[in-house]
Amino acid sequence: MTVQATRTAFIGAILIDGTGSAPLANSAVVVEDERITWAGSATELDRPSDVRIVDISGKYLIPGLLDANVHLLIHVDPDVLLRYDPGCYDELVLEAAQVALRAGITTVFDTWGPLESLRRVRDRINARETVGSRIFCAGNIIGNGGPYSPDFFPDLAAGLSSAVVDRINQHWEQGVGAELTWMSAEDVRLAVREYIATAGIDFVKYAASSHAHSRFIALSPDAQRAIVEEAHAAGMTAQACVQSPEALKLAIEAGVDLLQHGDVTGLRPMPQETLDLIVERRLPCAAFFYTRRHTAAFQERKPHWHGNNAWGEVMVVKEANDRNLVKAGAKLLLANDMGVYGPTAETSPMWGPFQAGIPDVPTHLGRSHIFWLRAAGEHGLTPMDALLATTSNIAEAYGKADELGTIRPGRRADLLILDGDPLDDPENYARIAHIVKDGKFVHHDRLPEHPVLTR
Amino acid sequence: MTVQATRTAFIGAILIDGTGSAPLANSAVVVEDERITWAGSATELDRPSDVRIVDISGKYLIPGLLDANVHLLIHVDPDVLLRYDPGCYDELVLEAAQVALRAGITTVFDTWGPLESLRRVRDRINARETVGSRIFCAGNIIGNGGPYSPDFFPDLAAGLSSAVVDRINQHWEQGVGAELTWMSAEDVRLAVREYIATAGIDFVKYAASSHAHSRFIALSPDAQRAIVEEAHAAGMTAQACVQSPEALKLAIEAGVDLLQHGDVTGLRPMPQETLDLIVERRLPCAAFFYTRRHTAAFQERKPHWHGNNAWGEVMVVKEANDRNLVKAGAKLLLANDMGVYGPTAETSPMWGPFQAGIPDVPTHLGRSHIFWLRAAGEHGLTPMDALLATTSNIAEAYGKADELGTIRPGRRADLLILDGDPLDDPENYARIAHIVKDGKFVHHDRLPEHPVLTR
Amino acid sequence: MTVQATRTAFIGAILIDGTGSAPLANSAVVVEDERITWAGSATELDRPSDVRIVDISGKYLIPGLLDANVHLLIHVDPDVLLRYDPGCYDELVLEAAQVALRAGITTVFDTWGPLESLRRVRDRINARETVGSRIFCAGNIIGNGGPYSPDFFPDLAAGLSSAVVDRINQHWEQGVGAELTWMSAEDVRLAVREYIATAGIDFVKYAASSHAHSRFIALSPDAQRAIVEEAHAAGMTAQACVQSPEALKLAIEAGVDLLQHGDVTGLRPMPQETLDLIVERRLPCAAFFYTRRHTAAFQERKPHWHGNNAWGEVMVVKEANDRNLVKAGAKLLLANDMGVYGPTAETSPMWGPFQAGIPDVPTHLGRSHIFWLRAAGEHGLTPMDALLATTSNIAEAYGKADELGTIRPGRRADLLILDGDPLDDPENYARIAHIVKDGKFVHHDRLPEHPVLTR
Amino acid sequence: MTVQATRTAFIGAILIDGTGSAPLANSAVVVEDERITWAGSATELDRPSDVRIVDISGKYLIPGLLDANVHLLIHVDPDVLLRYDPGCYDELVLEAAQVALRAGITTVFDTWGPLESLRRVRDRINARETVGSRIFCAGNIIGNGGPYSPDFFPDLAAGLSSAVVDRINQHWEQGVGAELTWMSAEDVRLAVREYIATAGIDFVKYAASSHAHSRFIALSPDAQRAIVEEAHAAGMTAQACVQSPEALKLAIEAGVDLLQHGDVTGLRPMPQETLDLIVERRLPCAAFFYTRRHTAAFQERKPHWHGNNAWGEVMVVKEANDRNLVKAGAKLLLANDMGVYGPTAETSPMWGPFQAGIPDVPTHLGRSHIFWLRAAGEHGLTPMDALLATTSNIAEAYGKADELGTIRPGRRADLLILDGDPLDDPENYARIAHIVKDGKFVHHDRLPEHPVLTR
Repeated sequence: MTVQATRTAFIGAILIDGTGSAPLANSAVVVEDERITWAGSATELDRPSDVRIVDISGKYLIPGLLDANVHLLIHVDPDVLLRYDPGCYDELVLEAAQVALRAGITTVFDTWGPLESLRRVRDRINARETVGSRIFCAGNIIGNGGPYSPDFFPDLAAGLSSAVVDRINQHWEQGVGAELTWMSAEDVRLAVREYIATAGIDFVKYAASSHAHSRFIALSPDAQRAIVEEAHAAGMTAQACVQSPEALKLAIEAGVDLLQHGDVTGLRPMPQETLDLIVERRLPCAAFFYTRRHTAAFQERKPHWHGNNAWGEVMVVKEANDRNLVKAGAKLLLANDMGVYGPTAETSPMWGPFQAGIPDVPTHLGRSHIFWLRAAGEHGLTPMDALLATTSNIAEAYGKADELGTIRPGRRADLLILDGDPLDDPENYARIAHIVKDGKFVHHDRLPEHPVLTR
Repeated sequence: MTVQATRTAFIGAILIDGTGSAPLANSAVVVEDERITWAGSATELDRPSDVRIVDISGKYLIPGLLDANVHLLIHVDPDVLLRYDPGCYDELVLEAAQVALRAGITTVFDTWGPLESLRRVRDRINARETVGSRIFCAGNIIGNGGPYSPDFFPDLAAGLSSAVVDRINQHWEQGVGAELTWMSAEDVRLAVREYIATAGIDFVKYAASSHAHSRFIALSPDAQRAIVEEAHAAGMTAQACVQSPEALKLAIEAGVDLLQHGDVTGLRPMPQETLDLIVERRLPCAAFFYTRRHTAAFQERKPHWHGNNAWGEVMVVKEANDRNLVKAGAKLLLANDMGVYGPTAETSPMWGPFQAGIPDVPTHLGRSHIFWLRAAGEHGLTPMDALLATTSNIAEAYGKADELGTIRPGRRADLLILDGDPLDDPENYARIAHIVKDGKFVHHDRLPEHPVLTR
Repeated sequence: MTVQATRTAFIGAILIDGTGSAPLANSAVVVEDERITWAGSATELDRPSDVRIVDISGKYLIPGLLDANVHLLIHVDPDVLLRYDPGCYDELVLEAAQVALRAGITTVFDTWGPLESLRRVRDRINARETVGSRIFCAGNIIGNGGPYSPDFFPDLAAGLSSAVVDRINQHWEQGVGAELTWMSAEDVRLAVREYIATAGIDFVKYAASSHAHSRFIALSPDAQRAIVEEAHAAGMTAQACVQSPEALKLAIEAGVDLLQHGDVTGLRPMPQETLDLIVERRLPCAAFFYTRRHTAAFQERKPHWHGNNAWGEVMVVKEANDRNLVKAGAKLLLANDMGVYGPTAETSPMWGPFQAGIPDVPTHLGRSHIFWLRAAGEHGLTPMDALLATTSNIAEAYGKADELGTIRPGRRADLLILDGDPLDDPENYARIAHIVKDGKFVHHDRLPEHPVLTR
Repeated sequence: MTVQATRTAFIGAILIDGTGSAPLANSAVVVEDERITWAGSATELDRPSDVRIVDISGKYLIPGLLDANVHLLIHVDPDVLLRYDPGCYDELVLEAAQVALRAGITTVFDTWGPLESLRRVRDRINARETVGSRIFCAGNIIGNGGPYSPDFFPDLAAGLSSAVVDRINQHWEQGVGAELTWMSAEDVRLAVREYIATAGIDFVKYAASSHAHSRFIALSPDAQRAIVEEAHAAGMTAQACVQSPEALKLAIEAGVDLLQHGDVTGLRPMPQETLDLIVERRLPCAAFFYTRRHTAAFQERKPHWHGNNAWGEVMVVKEANDRNLVKAGAKLLLANDMGVYGPTAETSPMWGPFQAGIPDVPTHLGRSHIFWLRAAGEHGLTPMDALLATTSNIAEAYGKADELGTIRPGRRADLLILDGDPLDDPENYARIAHIVKDGKFVHHDRLPEHPVLTR
């Protein structure tokens, strides 16, 4: 085959293309503009003079990573949000998108955030006005209130004027907040239809489980089905936030395309029937894998008075689910609520106690996916399946397999070039030689350009 | 007709027999032992010498009242419960049963309480070892935690040792508490089967809505169906605690026999389809009627900071539901979470704010049913339908129509003899001349015998 | 007398010069540069050609007002402070200084605030770089922590990272915070000496009473004496925050020059001996006069659970003290913790409950001094004494009588020209024709120039 | 010397008589009725036939121990107090007095408790109607509110009706509560005079420091002097609760007879001048000695958010004070807020966090004095001085040296007979052979007779 000049050929690397095929030594991948036009053995590639050759011999070439569940603005403490009042969080969102990209995560799926800022930053990145991880966003989790509502972190708002609290919550809620849980299924359908039509979101996420009160079901089966139908009618995928065995079952019955933290089933394990269903249907399951070290640290934390080390207990169950999901061959996706935290998080009333005593907090965007990959191995996932869980599985789950997640002709040219074999050691995902996004080299070591929280 | 001596004939009253028939002047009702053996016009009754004649000319004779939803122990503040630690609340339960009886309420359905004490007092009353309103009890609301759990009044427990909190909660939970919300429907079925088989309850109540977080669904549709099936298999009625439109719909779909406060649908009104269903199926709906005066008082209360006058808002919706239910001819039952409160309730962190500024708090057992009856009239219910709502409707809803709720041969001889016409003015329900329960006169002015909270 | 051209003569007004002299009709006041050079009857003034004549016939001419106790930054809610993090509150302070000036208050004494911003704004105003009320400031109340410390409003900080809380508190504490209450008197002396020498304050204020726990004494008698001595040694006045009878006595014994809200003695009235002492020594007493209407409103507020309507009870005592102070002829000063509040104050967890149900909250800078003046009359103060309480009494109390508070030769030319007689009706203090500060007309209707909280 | 029959002679032990004299081998102590009539070398004692001889050869004979600061009812959680509502805590007080006696503590000074119960139990013990440690009690700490007031543990009352809270607090306050901090010194004097005259207390304790807000001074110097004068006028000793350097100084200046936890000076060490004063005047200082192990445990506890490990920090300072006090030869007394805790304390919101992670909590009556004695050694106190600190020092400090604290003729016959040398190892204080109180053997292994909290 011959390629036109103005094209770039990446030559010599060991190619792991995200399809599950065995690594290909001495590979060649040709990129034209923003897309991959050819991938195969370097020996089969005719090299015409108009192709720029990039010799990456000795390197490992994999698809740019995807993350199935990030929150580009997660450090929602008053000291962060009020600085940007009334609600232009673009700086923070962009910083996070750049933190992700710096780590080779070329695409992120933001599953809960301030929609207006997410949209603006997404569009600026897509328009090449700035650089960052490619963003797809859901805006609100339909049926939940905003960050300072009882569904999330009301304690953070304990000292705030309710006028301020309402203003901030609305940046998240966007008209599909807690009031939907009071509605009939038909009214939920209409509200969601309006939201999908006007809000500029990329996919739909809804609350099957209540977020804060995770043993409860937030939206009725009929309402859940209506939401999924509306998403599908608009050509979008739909996912559910699930946290209990019955909510998980209801979400599957509602026809969701992705189970968000489907491995978290609270204080009771996932029933065998449900597990079987997930496996049979190849239903993508974003999983909160923790390393043994992290699990142990969370479990060791002393219970508080009158409360309990709830997360510690939930983890024990989750671990069992994780092992079962891996064993049964479920389709798993990298996810861990990752985001960027500023230095005040350490003494935050919200994050402080959560992070206390946990070494290398496993929810730090740009860093914690390595922990996830290591945990995957600990749970029995093969290195190749772990790689798929961070690339093509996610693209498929979000209906983006034609664009993202593999190194095949026609896909966007998102390439991650590593100095070490990612199948050998998860740490090698962090030994980044080059990042290519949309066919262009990313100066990843200059990111984030304008550090705010990471300053 | 002739009656045997040793019998008692109540002669001369205007009889309103609870069947909906027009009042019968100059009536006669014959009681033998514990049951009614004859009822009709006094002119048709041959009076043999062995009948004791009780002349109640000028009085009004109606069935003993029933209350579809009481909590014989509702003042669950620490100063009350800890005095009876470790959990022998019999004195309190008995006092409440006598407070009810004193007001002519000869039968109460306790829908949430400390089962062991309820059972003991129920059995002592039934065995004639003591006197009190006839008790049927559900024990726990399946799926909810106890009074100091997050499902009810955790603030009351804020200063208590968690060992104490757990101990008290267990008197209510009885093995079918909050943990059921984590279970699969099949595990819920097994737990409920065991509960029904061993706990000595009279009917089943479960949480369709979460109690404290009323916009959420507590138990999945499958779990709800399983509970109803188990109740029916054991020959019991099943009812659901519902607080939102979708929970209401789910409960109906699950096949419940009674909707507990089915008129309370939170911040959104009951959909027309649901209303139609309730009416068509004659599904008994225990309703929380409030008088205009009470509704206005609740609405006028100032919203709290960061919260809102939630109950005030819910009331507006409830009022609209109530009017619609009445208009559509739904089968309504007297219910109002009535119970007995001691003097410390006034400054309780729980009841104080609830009662503040509310004249004649409408949840006082023995008194508030009069408010309910007045409210019924304000909502458009005819006086006769209001009477049925406090008598035969309740008996039918609980499957006790052959025993209770009407003055017909074969029924238990529970008679309320009034000095004024109850169809004329609800206050006349309180103008009690005599109370007969199980065929015996009650010395109601001596009740409660051993006042504790009402001291 | 003749005056030079380049001078301005205000001619024709009824002059009330702040010395207590009877109003002088047809007066003349001559101003040269920033100072008054002549004041008297217009008939006695030769008018040379080089004097600009300002005819204010029919007006009332009084000294620019002083306020003995303001907090230019009082709305210390997170939504306000965090917007200016890390601590440059100059905009807010300047706005408040302009709000004061607009109301004819040409000099304010800020008795607790963020020192660095207060100093910067003070100096810019003094340097004529901007316009605003003349500021004298104490910085911290020695011995108290900052606004989010337990001494003030810790509830406002309930949701904040402790790193943020500490950072904000330090803008107020300035090294003389709560830690001084643990020190020996000698160590307190050294800390205060350092503070006076380096902090750029204008006068000293310390905590005789604990602020939040007002029944307690914050600093020991020896420490109090040491603070007063250090202030005097540096040529400054010293004042104490007092809130109980014994703290009041200790402050007097320590030799303070001014009693800050000396009329507030908590739940017990000021003893007669203390009152006598205040009167004999002519000890300036800044008093929190409230109108009858305000007092009634505060008292009517319902007590909260477990708490009490503390401020309501304290007010009853204060009212009695106020009447006694007036009757005994004490030297009283206008004070009321006045400051500027933004719209979010209404739903603030701090200010919302305080302001709830209070019409025309009496702590609004630029407005509430009128309430104070009306209250003064209600308490029996003559209109002339009330005028002195807002002018010369304050200047004398702060050792500024040679500069401020009267319209006499040599004083700064701070003039308030009113359309109505202030001795006739307190409202006339608000009918402002002209404001002159430092000899220049203030375009007071353009203030504040850059509204932030008052926007 | 000869003794009468009916007397008892304890023969053969090594006598350590509490005077500081060297141990006397082969001693004899003669007891007649309730008092010691002779003590010396056994060789000097003529043994007539009418003396009962108790051979305690090989044992160690020391005075019954005294404790300068106990709280016979300290576990004031609602689950304990409400069981005894309305306030008859006699059972609990007696149990604690028996727990103390069982450990050889024959006399306790209760420095804060429910007076009526304390008095009743004290009088019953003194009248020989029951057995227990001899009680002297102060009732309330003058100037403090009760256990559920803001001065102590308001969090324990968070869920209680305020009517209940007030009722309980009054059992402690007895008319000399928090309201005294609002009073003038003269009014404090009158209130205290009335209290002393009518309440039936044995000694006076007042709040120099605020209890909960320990950096503040609760009562003014004049009020403190008035209290001490009233105590002395009534022939009682007066002591102050001190927690800061300046409060300590004020208490000394007020003339107190005993400094209660005089070694606790908050976050700043005791000034040298104050230390010198304590030593010179031989002012008894009840000290909260902790062993190194306990101190380390308290310091290691993680600080809470927004709070701090206050007690940990205070301890560091206290340790330094303790070493200095020992080194300077101050007169020290055993004290440690000891009391009896029931099993629910472990999960109490108050005691749980305090005890968490602390092995062998050092405030358990009957056990923790051993820790104190060990700590005394660690701080450099000689074993003999430690023994005096638990015997004669306390008797002297409370003005009871003629009655208690030494084994000398005329004193009450309170004897502790040990199997091991207390000067050799503090554990030997727990190796009890016999306890004699008021001349009678105590069946200490049968105590407490009716266990409640210790059940």
